[in-house]
Amino acid sequence: MIIVLFAAPDLWGEYRDVLPEAIARAGVTAQVVLEAAPETVDYIVYAPGAPLQDFTPFTRTKAVLSLWAGVERIVGNPTLTQPLCRMVDPSLTESMVEWVVGHTLRHHLGMDAHIVNPDRRWNPVPPPLARNRPVTVLGLGALGTACAQALAALNFPVTGWSRRPKSLPGLRCLSGADGLRAALTGAEIVVTLLPRTPETDNTLNAETLALPARGAVILNPGRGPLIDDAALLAALDEGQIGHATLDVFRVEPLPRDHAFWAHPRITVTPHIAADTRAPSAATVIAENIRRAEAAEPLLHRVDRASGY
Amino acid sequence: MIIVLFAAPDLWGEYRDVLPEAIARAGVTAQVVLEAAPETVDYIVYAPGAPLQDFTPFTRTKAVLSLWAGVERIVGNPTLTQPLCRMVDPSLTESMVEWVVGHTLRHHLGMDAHIVNPDRRWNPVPPPLARNRPVTVLGLGALGTACAQALAALNFPVTGWSRRPKSLPGLRCLSGADGLRAALTGAEIVVTLLPRTPETDNTLNAETLALPARGAVILNPGRGPLIDDAALLAALDEGQIGHATLDVFRVEPLPRDHAFWAHPRITVTPHIAADTRAPSAATVIAENIRRAEAAEPLLHRVDRASGY
Ligand SMILES: NC(=O)c1ccc[n+]([C@@H]2O[C@H](COP(=O)([O-])OP(=O)(O)OC[C@H]3O[C@@H](n4cnc5c(N)ncnc54)[C@H](OP(=O)(O)O)[C@@H]3O)[C@@H](O)[C@H]2O)c1
Ligand SMILES: NC(=O)c1ccc[n+]([C@@H]2O[C@H](COP(=O)([O-])OP(=O)(O)OC[C@H]3O[C@@H](n4cnc5c(N)ncnc54)[C@H](OP(=O)(O)O)[C@@H]3O)[C@@H](O)[C@H]2O)c1
Repeated sequence: MIIVLFAAPDLWGEYRDVLPEAIARAGVTAQVVLEAAPETVDYIVYAPGAPLQDFTPFTRTKAVLSLWAGVERIVGNPTLTQPLCRMVDPSLTESMVEWVVGHTLRHHLGMDAHIVNPDRRWNPVPPPLARNRPVTVLGLGALGTACAQALAALNFPVTGWSRRPKSLPGLRCLSGADGLRAALTGAEIVVTLLPRTPETDNTLNAETLALPARGAVILNPGRGPLIDDAALLAALDEGQIGHATLDVFRVEPLPRDHAFWAHPRITVTPHIAADTRAPSAATVIAENIRRAEAAEPLLHRVDRASGY
Repeated sequence: MIIVLFAAPDLWGEYRDVLPEAIARAGVTAQVVLEAAPETVDYIVYAPGAPLQDFTPFTRTKAVLSLWAGVERIVGNPTLTQPLCRMVDPSLTESMVEWVVGHTLRHHLGMDAHIVNPDRRWNPVPPPLARNRPVTVLGLGALGTACAQALAALNFPVTGWSRRPKSLPGLRCLSGADGLRAALTGAEIVVTLLPRTPETDNTLNAETLALPARGAVILNPGRGPLIDDAALLAALDEGQIGHATLDVFRVEPLPRDHAFWAHPRITVTPHIAADTRAPSAATVIAENIRRAEAAEPLLHRVDRASGY
């Protein structure tokens, strides 16, 4: 059996050992390689950055297994007829929770005013309690739900929003277009953890950015196009939005001359909110290969119609 | 029955209404006043900043109820022979947890490099996972335990240290002098939540600051004297300690010419980590008055011998 890793070349070092080991642990006998004749390939392990664009010659391939949670760069590829699975992995979820909870608390506590305080201002005004700071999480998938629950455990009143109706303990769950308005209205911190699909593009735009509480903070660890850049800049300049901390952008790395870099109320983090870590990701990939070989249903299979 | 509030004058506005209400809710009939003849006073509600220093004339007073968690400014007063209770209050605990978890994640994620990034550096190196970042909390009382548990819930491996041996689920608990060495050795983030007593002065000194992992971060929301200032500055300059975020100081407000203000690897927050909030604090005070009147044991009574 042949498994090919299609990814940016520097990823090979990370997976060369751990992927064969994980596959062996799953009880599957296979070779993991960087190159093979397409018609001999059983499984493709895929990360954006791979030059592979034409999946047509992979006639024998039983599944394409993404190393990334977000699959927008591959899901619409018309040559991709094989089953596609995305990455859902405990270490990815953990790091996303750490980034979201950390930046939520940073803004909640008003830390920036202490981190940079050249005037040595001693102004002992404590922030409100988390229980009085409404947070809204757009997207209640693997990552959004974990973040929403971690925030709720710290007493933030959390509203979550998803495409289909959901009910999750300790969270106010909303869905659909009306749900979006209600979820955003009055929120003081908004976290965008939606996948990029044609439906989610510009979810935060001039109209929806007017709904949160004045001075609200936006955290975007989802995908750049979830936010209309120009509308965000306008809302920041006008004061309706107080700060935006962004991990993802329409173009990455964020170009040096992009207005986001210079804006005093935007923080740029370089797409590090959640990183796929080879050891645990390899285990997820191996389990899916085991399942496919045993004719069991694949985990985290992407629904082509909805695009995620 | 007469209850007097001894506190800095600006506190009266906060307590004038909520304290009588809480006392009435507790089923006790009493007057809450700012001044009364000492020999008529049944209970003293006390906050540092009050000019009251001589408790001798309060011959009828059944308890002194502190609005602060830390009682080092009053516990050693030789005229204070009445029972002394400190403040333990859910809102105080919540805000301390928010400050400690927030600043732990700030340093864990290396946020400062993104918050201030004039060179527009895009350096996508994700931080380690919390599960690989050992944190040590010195003090496992009302506040230290809550912080340690919140950090453990985010997967940080947490060691706690207390005077007497303890066993708490999910935490490595150590005590005593040997325990301190073991608790600090290899820690990457150290949180000091000890009370100020003669025993805890300079708990972090030249010798103990050498024990954490190189580049470790110190968070002090406890009390200024827990750390030897000169030893901290030396450890920061030498690189053994990577950063210190301090909420409390030997002199507060921190004097404008203090070296801490100017140090690039010290963050000053102005004693805001945990604030006593009048509505919940009033409920705690009222419950203790109810208990005293019913001859039930007082809550959160200070042990004069140990000083906290
Ligand atoms: N910055 C980073 O480092 C990083 C790392 C990993 C992932 N990400 C991003 O995070 C995203 C979320 O990941 P995940 O694993 O949580 O995805 P997921 O499990 O597929 O969850 C997606 C969530 O978004 C909701 N959603 C999708 N389309 C929607 C629409 N049109 N309207 C309302 N809700 C909609 C889904 O609703 P239903 O529940 O109704 O399906 C679901 O709750 C990824 O797609 C990726 O873009 C970023
Ligand atoms: N920055 C702020 O805004 C703020 C606000 C509130 C409080 N504080 C500070 O936080 C401190 C802790 O409050 P708390 O309510 O958690 O106090 P607490 O419940 O009395 O807990 C004190 C903890 O410290 C331990 N301890 C005391 N002396 C020790 C020693 N010599 N060696 C080792 N451990 C020792 C105690 O050990 P045992 O468990 O064995 O007794 C206990 O675990 C307060 O005293 C105050 O200084 C700061």
